[in-house]
Amino acid sequence: MPSPNTDSSSPVITREQLLHQWQGHRGLTRRVIDAFPENDLFNYSIGGMRTFAVLAMEFIGMAVPTLQGMINGEWPSTKPDPPTTKADLLKLWDSTTEEIEKLWPTIPPARFQETDTAFGQWKMPIYGLLLYIIDNEIHHRGQGYVYLRALGVEPPPFYDRP
Amino acid sequence: MPSPNTDSSSPVITREQLLHQWQGHRGLTRRVIDAFPENDLFNYSIGGMRTFAVLAMEFIGMAVPTLQGMINGEWPSTKPDPPTTKADLLKLWDSTTEEIEKLWPTIPPARFQETDTAFGQWKMPIYGLLLYIIDNEIHHRGQGYVYLRALGVEPPPFYDRP
Repeated sequence: MPSPNTDSSSPVITREQLLHQWQGHRGLTRRVIDAFPENDLFNYSIGGMRTFAVLAMEFIGMAVPTLQGMINGEWPSTKPDPPTTKADLLKLWDSTTEEIEKLWPTIPPARFQETDTAFGQWKMPIYGLLLYIIDNEIHHRGQGYVYLRALGVEPPPFYDRP
Repeated sequence: MPSPNTDSSSPVITREQLLHQWQGHRGLTRRVIDAFPENDLFNYSIGGMRTFAVLAMEFIGMAVPTLQGMINGEWPSTKPDPPTTKADLLKLWDSTTEEIEKLWPTIPPARFQETDTAFGQWKMPIYGLLLYIIDNEIHHRGQGYVYLRALGVEPPPFYDRP
């Protein structure tokens, strides 16, 4: 039985915890990318869906531009060219990871509760936007797990996100 | 450009927002269950993975018992019997939705930041446990999207979570 602590100013989650949560998921997605055989990463799919390489590029394309918009209200539309090898995709993944670590502390604290029109299209609270891109990655990564299982490859454990 | 609001006491997300986020995901999962043809819901799978009915029962089995443990530190291990029709599964889903709405306001505020050993097994912060069960649902629902696509059924849009 926990102590009856009822301090209502206690946060649900702090920004450091949310970053850790996000990067934990991104670390798992990196292991899923790496689990794919090179050729299947760029060519395999089920039911007409996108390949996992294309999905990974979607995650990369959303992460830093979203953070930049969160920080200063400008939503860049530039996208990196899609790599053609697993090694290059993982390299781009890792540079995105570093960029997130660098940008995160510069988000103005009150920004999470503000509403903005992201990329001129999606009007929503900033915390909701951030959860959207994390959830989108979890959603499509789940799709990648099915690709791996169908290919006879054991995916990395879902719960393992140090 | 947003106003330079730097109030560091502004929360990342409030408990009401997190509930809304969770129930939004649960509403989408309900539509995914409903999109399955009755027989495929209980029998179809890819790569030796679980059927979507079994996955839906995992989500149901985690939701209320986790909330109960969050509230009072006791982690019930009882599980409802798995329904054998889509209508009964949706009925059980809806009663879980109501139960979550009822229990949520009774979580002691400081509990989210406490660490506990959930179900005698998983020692983690409570906010992390809650995100785990939401993420687990998103992850496996993504798997359900592949099942639906492979069956030639258009899944409900991922972004539609009113």
